[in-house]
Amino acid sequence: MGLYEEIDGFFHPKTIAVIGASSKPGKIGYAVLENLKSYNGKIYPINPKAEKIMGLKCYPDIESVPDTIDMAVIVIRSENTPDTIDKCAKKGVKNIVIISGGFKELGGKYENIEKEVRKRARKYGIRIIGPNCIGVFDPRTGIDTLFEPKWKAQRPSPGNIAILSQSGTYALILMEWAAVDVLGISKLVSYGNKVDVDEADLLEYLKDEPNTDVIGIYMEGISNGRKFFKVAKEVGKVKPIVILRGGRTEKAKRAVKSHTGFLGGGGRIYEAAFKQAGVFIARNLEDLYDIMKALAKQPPAKGRRIAMVSNGAGLMVQAVDAIEDEEMELAELTEKTKETLREHLSPYTVVDNPVDLTGSATEDDYYFTVKTVLEDPNVDIILVFFVLQNAPLEPSVVEKLSQLLPRAKELSKPIIFGAAGGQYTKYVTQEAEKFGFPMYQIPERSVRAAKALYKWGERLQK
Amino acid sequence: MGLYEEIDGFFHPKTIAVIGASSKPGKIGYAVLENLKSYNGKIYPINPKAEKIMGLKCYPDIESVPDTIDMAVIVIRSENTPDTIDKCAKKGVKNIVIISGGFKELGGKYENIEKEVRKRARKYGIRIIGPNCIGVFDPRTGIDTLFEPKWKAQRPSPGNIAILSQSGTYALILMEWAAVDVLGISKLVSYGNKVDVDEADLLEYLKDEPNTDVIGIYMEGISNGRKFFKVAKEVGKVKPIVILRGGRTEKAKRAVKSHTGFLGGGGRIYEAAFKQAGVFIARNLEDLYDIMKALAKQPPAKGRRIAMVSNGAGLMVQAVDAIEDEEMELAELTEKTKETLREHLSPYTVVDNPVDLTGSATEDDYYFTVKTVLEDPNVDIILVFFVLQNAPLEPSVVEKLSQLLPRAKELSKPIIFGAAGGQYTKYVTQEAEKFGFPMYQIPERSVRAAKALYKWGERLQK
Repeated sequence: MGLYEEIDGFFHPKTIAVIGASSKPGKIGYAVLENLKSYNGKIYPINPKAEKIMGLKCYPDIESVPDTIDMAVIVIRSENTPDTIDKCAKKGVKNIVIISGGFKELGGKYENIEKEVRKRARKYGIRIIGPNCIGVFDPRTGIDTLFEPKWKAQRPSPGNIAILSQSGTYALILMEWAAVDVLGISKLVSYGNKVDVDEADLLEYLKDEPNTDVIGIYMEGISNGRKFFKVAKEVGKVKPIVILRGGRTEKAKRAVKSHTGFLGGGGRIYEAAFKQAGVFIARNLEDLYDIMKALAKQPPAKGRRIAMVSNGAGLMVQAVDAIEDEEMELAELTEKTKETLREHLSPYTVVDNPVDLTGSATEDDYYFTVKTVLEDPNVDIILVFFVLQNAPLEPSVVEKLSQLLPRAKELSKPIIFGAAGGQYTKYVTQEAEKFGFPMYQIPERSVRAAKALYKWGERLQK
Repeated sequence: MGLYEEIDGFFHPKTIAVIGASSKPGKIGYAVLENLKSYNGKIYPINPKAEKIMGLKCYPDIESVPDTIDMAVIVIRSENTPDTIDKCAKKGVKNIVIISGGFKELGGKYENIEKEVRKRARKYGIRIIGPNCIGVFDPRTGIDTLFEPKWKAQRPSPGNIAILSQSGTYALILMEWAAVDVLGISKLVSYGNKVDVDEADLLEYLKDEPNTDVIGIYMEGISNGRKFFKVAKEVGKVKPIVILRGGRTEKAKRAVKSHTGFLGGGGRIYEAAFKQAGVFIARNLEDLYDIMKALAKQPPAKGRRIAMVSNGAGLMVQAVDAIEDEEMELAELTEKTKETLREHLSPYTVVDNPVDLTGSATEDDYYFTVKTVLEDPNVDIILVFFVLQNAPLEPSVVEKLSQLLPRAKELSKPIIFGAAGGQYTKYVTQEAEKFGFPMYQIPERSVRAAKALYKWGERLQK
């Protein structure tokens, strides 16, 4: 069995044992079982102290289950884990997710327990995700080992971005942001202390995984740098990889050690290696998400020349600052474009780049302007900002503009939206996301998204 | 009449004429009248083409109104503005808000119209806000000249932050973010081309305005730098001022000129002058808002030593990076604190700074830990992060922790929250904001907030 099949096993097991399932609401072993209960496979709770949990027959140990077991999810004290792996091996289990913490991150004897787990995984050829993680989620197969109840953590729909994260928290936040934005995901893997499966394995798997187009990673320490950078370079040629590094500073070294047991620091060395591998480096979690969203929704750009349109110029003034900061370019609109706009728009419009449609702008003004600017040979990327709150602007402007998406794709010119406000704006924003426009709250974030699409286009041309 | 009374006149006029009121929904002159209709004062729509608008008797011009008029809101073509000011003067109007654009920002003959407006304002001693703006809003008096309908733009409740903005869009976004966060405001002024009233006037006014504790400003060009920096230095001693500058780069010069008619650029010179004046410099609109929120909700800190508590360590790992980047300090907890925590918490807890309560943490674990750390003499500021989605953590944790706020205030130790996710987390976040905790989505933003409270404390000690 190759790496692809080994890793793929985590996403569609036919039978799952939940070792450490609990009947007490609020316990991690309860939440895991509850989330897995709706998975389309056979679920076997394992707990010597219960007869039944959530209506499912409970077994004292994995050996007593009268069925083969493909995957085990472990939620027990770290001290008992190595023996449990022996039992899983006897039962023929191929994949294990260890949710529990209490391993390498605590140091001392706990570090030895983790070593023992690794030794047995290698011995039996079992693939392990974790420990000290939230495991896996796949909206297509429904596999869900998270210990966050669904009413507390929204699951996104099927989509094309894969989330890999050493931190369970960050995996969760990215997942929920994607759910709120109606941005689907392909796979989520929180791998914690990565006793066995690591980023490199997951990247190699995702390279061939047909539903994944974009890969986002939050990582702290790298265990095998050579392996990782080799794979990242390879995979990054065909699918964009966006990386956020935590614990890069000297001060954070200790914090990383007590989080997932790895060594932090070395920020600049890593950054140079990431750049050489051709991956995108995110500045923070929002930036990681922003870039993934842009890459997932819009085509790569052919150049760095940005045109802007808005009914509120403040946003565009700051976007121009960001264009300078990010070394992008403000497009020079052709005379033909300017003439066409001048003929059609009100005399108070500022026809230049940025195009300021002023507070009186309607949906039609936006449509005409974006349509015209899209055809301008001097323009590679269009940033459209909205003050959706303005009385004259209809919310249907986002649907109207979506009519231009096929043409924009044909020309490979990304269209990126920007808007911010309260409930109403959030609602319209969500609609815009559904139509396929990535939407950002502040102009700096729109420009960062534009830059990623330019850089990805540049990479593909090589 | 002094400056205070002159500016204060904008916020509680007894009678208002809306010159250019429209009967067509979607028009700016309609939206302005609609928003003012619920204001507790007499509203007179002025429009020669209508008899009645929204049930209010309409007058052909301001002279025909059978009442005195305190304030006029102007929504007509720029060309007709100077004559209208003459008429307002005859009627004894003291305050005018010019919403309309089509002035200095367009250059040429339009620039001359603006000069004419200024000349007449000075001649008559009328104070003018605008043109090219959205005007004023005050949740206490109800004055509201915005042209964004209430269903499109949420109004915040009364509070202690004042928003000043050259850009109407930014004023609007800050206002709505404040509404969503249940963070009240004292005054909002969008002043656009500032033909008369400028930032310096408004700052001087706000210095004595009793409801205002924190002032946030978005500005592009400064017309009279000497006046502004003198006033900012003075006001900034008693109330913190946070400034975001747009159009600081060379490229943005032209964009600023066509937005509000001012000259942009000179970023570094301004930055140095801001620093000298002792104001806070925001990096972007989110940062401006974040800092204002922290200053409005939490006490100034006595030092820069930060302690952290969370049930998800990923957030804290990145917070440590941010602490290094922002030149803050990671507190060394006393042995006494550590012992107390070790005695009380589970053996899997990482008792150090940051304190990692792990995914099993409950409300009680949080309460005990924050209470203990709060009393540690080595700690000046506490950052509390939550993975609210985790099964064992009750949402009531935010209410429970609010019991510590009086003690934290007594010690002048700010408590800052961090959490991110989907609908559920947003809901709990909003509850936390209601209790008085400023909440941030990513750790870098929590640390920026902490830094502002430290810097404000430092300033006050001088």
